[in-house]
Amino acid sequence: MSQVQRGARNRRTPYYAATQRYGPKGFTVYNHMYFPIRYDSFEAEFDALLSNVTIWDVSVERCLEISGPDGFQFAQLLTPRDLSKCAVGQAKYVLICDSDGGIVNDPVLTRMDENTFWFALASSDALLFARGLKNAYPELDVTIREADVAPLQVQGPKSKDLMRDLLGEGILDLKYYWWRHAEIRGIPVVVTRTGWTSEVGYEIYLLDSSKGGQLWETLMEVGAPYGVRPTGPSDIRRIEGGIFNWGADMTYEHNALEMGLDRLVDLGLTDDACISIAAYRRIRDAGVLRRIVGVELDGEPFPELNNVNWPASTARGGDAVGLVTSAIYSPRLERNIGFCWLPVEHAAEGTGLQVETEWGTRTATVVPMPFVDPEKRIPIS
Amino acid sequence: MSQVQRGARNRRTPYYAATQRYGPKGFTVYNHMYFPIRYDSFEAEFDALLSNVTIWDVSVERCLEISGPDGFQFAQLLTPRDLSKCAVGQAKYVLICDSDGGIVNDPVLTRMDENTFWFALASSDALLFARGLKNAYPELDVTIREADVAPLQVQGPKSKDLMRDLLGEGILDLKYYWWRHAEIRGIPVVVTRTGWTSEVGYEIYLLDSSKGGQLWETLMEVGAPYGVRPTGPSDIRRIEGGIFNWGADMTYEHNALEMGLDRLVDLGLTDDACISIAAYRRIRDAGVLRRIVGVELDGEPFPELNNVNWPASTARGGDAVGLVTSAIYSPRLERNIGFCWLPVEHAAEGTGLQVETEWGTRTATVVPMPFVDPEKRIPIS
Repeated sequence: MSQVQRGARNRRTPYYAATQRYGPKGFTVYNHMYFPIRYDSFEAEFDALLSNVTIWDVSVERCLEISGPDGFQFAQLLTPRDLSKCAVGQAKYVLICDSDGGIVNDPVLTRMDENTFWFALASSDALLFARGLKNAYPELDVTIREADVAPLQVQGPKSKDLMRDLLGEGILDLKYYWWRHAEIRGIPVVVTRTGWTSEVGYEIYLLDSSKGGQLWETLMEVGAPYGVRPTGPSDIRRIEGGIFNWGADMTYEHNALEMGLDRLVDLGLTDDACISIAAYRRIRDAGVLRRIVGVELDGEPFPELNNVNWPASTARGGDAVGLVTSAIYSPRLERNIGFCWLPVEHAAEGTGLQVETEWGTRTATVVPMPFVDPEKRIPIS
Repeated sequence: MSQVQRGARNRRTPYYAATQRYGPKGFTVYNHMYFPIRYDSFEAEFDALLSNVTIWDVSVERCLEISGPDGFQFAQLLTPRDLSKCAVGQAKYVLICDSDGGIVNDPVLTRMDENTFWFALASSDALLFARGLKNAYPELDVTIREADVAPLQVQGPKSKDLMRDLLGEGILDLKYYWWRHAEIRGIPVVVTRTGWTSEVGYEIYLLDSSKGGQLWETLMEVGAPYGVRPTGPSDIRRIEGGIFNWGADMTYEHNALEMGLDRLVDLGLTDDACISIAAYRRIRDAGVLRRIVGVELDGEPFPELNNVNWPASTARGGDAVGLVTSAIYSPRLERNIGFCWLPVEHAAEGTGLQVETEWGTRTATVVPMPFVDPEKRIPIS
């Protein structure tokens, strides 16, 4: 930990002491918190996720809470997804977008009551964006704060077994992208049917941060018959599943239509309701100039996830026209896969590319994505 | 690096490859970039800073650039320090504050021209705050972006020798908190008389990010006669000097008057000119309820900088009333020193405290700060 921690500027999670007992192989930083990267090889953790059940400390998904009498109105300003279609008890994957359409963050939002929303944030200070924006709406009565909750992901085909043993048969009725309150051995939690894996799974939002170790060990104990193990994020699985990583694959300089995330933009919203809708209408009318697409890359399996972005050109020695932002070897597809930003004129399926990777020049081809389970039948099941 | 890096979400700095050659003992993350923590023991680096000259990669101070015809007006909205007193060519330590006075960031600001300002940011996405705020001022014609510049600190008593050899005698005329353009062996840079050490020093803002390695090695070469060495930040020296670390010692939940940073708030600004001024007038009139103060802590030297915040109470076994946010052993003062948040009624000099540190309970006393050179004669010299 001395290799990554320096002072108390970045925080430890409520599960920190527990994770230490399982030998994390490293920590990185996400939303100003330490984040266990992995406990084993990426491949071993991928296998565990596909075969059994994994638990993953994602306390770093700090929850931006919007509440108060005008909470709904302010939350809707932040996101172009129509929140009137998100019932209390439901959750939605949303984008927080600025008035030019730029993506500030891509959280899972849970609607806690009529006017209270939690945005489980990717690694950007969307809370500061919301605070800045509030100055444009001084008349709205809202509270903007970080809720003291700490999500933990329970993912994989046996996550249902674990959750049933933990909470009873009833939990199996929880629908995909819905949530409910629960107690786990006296520990208050919120359980959601969400995740960042493209597998079946749950997230448990710990509501009492003093109980992190207890919750963690309970899951390890109840999950033991199902081979539960702690892991970091599975970049293999999330890239297979076409899940983007804010900061790597998108930033505030990209918009939803460039990302192919049109389904997260409800153009029927009024300009007054959402700060980004007018921009999105303009972008739709004008068309986008670039897209992020799936690519397959030839040659030897990449030894790890890309550490830097890789320039891509359409001909050997040509000028870079694109950028690979995530790339990894998928053991089950037996190929290197990734995401690449390209001008629309070079983004058609089948387009050939030359990519300057950390491991030499590779030939790549634009392919459809997600690479696995494009209809998301697995996580919904 | 595999212990802290996972994918390309966080970026490497233009000096990354160069720093790798000098054996950094770890990296942490700051403003979504990897940050070399140290290359030697904290004490050895402290000695180098006090005796010779050090270079420190602070590319992680990402520069929020505010520009455009209304750049001055928008920059002034962000900070309660009167920017009309900051000439082009000058720099100022400023706070970016929200409309409740909360501190969003505490950058060094350099005024590049009438309407262009660089805010060299501490580790929070103040750019997103500025973007959010812009929605409240749609009529202002400003550009908000991250400038592609990478600061490097050159600090210590022999920094003047190094800079003179590098740029000629003229650079010695550069006054404290002023800046100028320069070229170092053809590499375009901006040189400022600023730093985060409380020692004499400069920052070199690299303007061509492809030249990081070349600039780094030039400094190592020219600085060799002066014993130059790469270091991380010196938390010993910055705590001695009463320099706060955003995220550790302050956040958006604290304001300038609680921090004792009244000098950074010009109450003569109009409410229209600056979003936080009305709040600061209210806070001044009402008085603050808590303060951050200097403390000395008894007992054995702390083995390292605190890793977590430490609760402080006024009597053994009493309820925590305060929080130590930074604490370290100063070898030259031969005592443990730090910063502690306390309610004003317990913040008077001489107040005794019990602090639950990572290394046992310690008795502490509220003392004046800065601990060394309270009039800042050293860095100004």
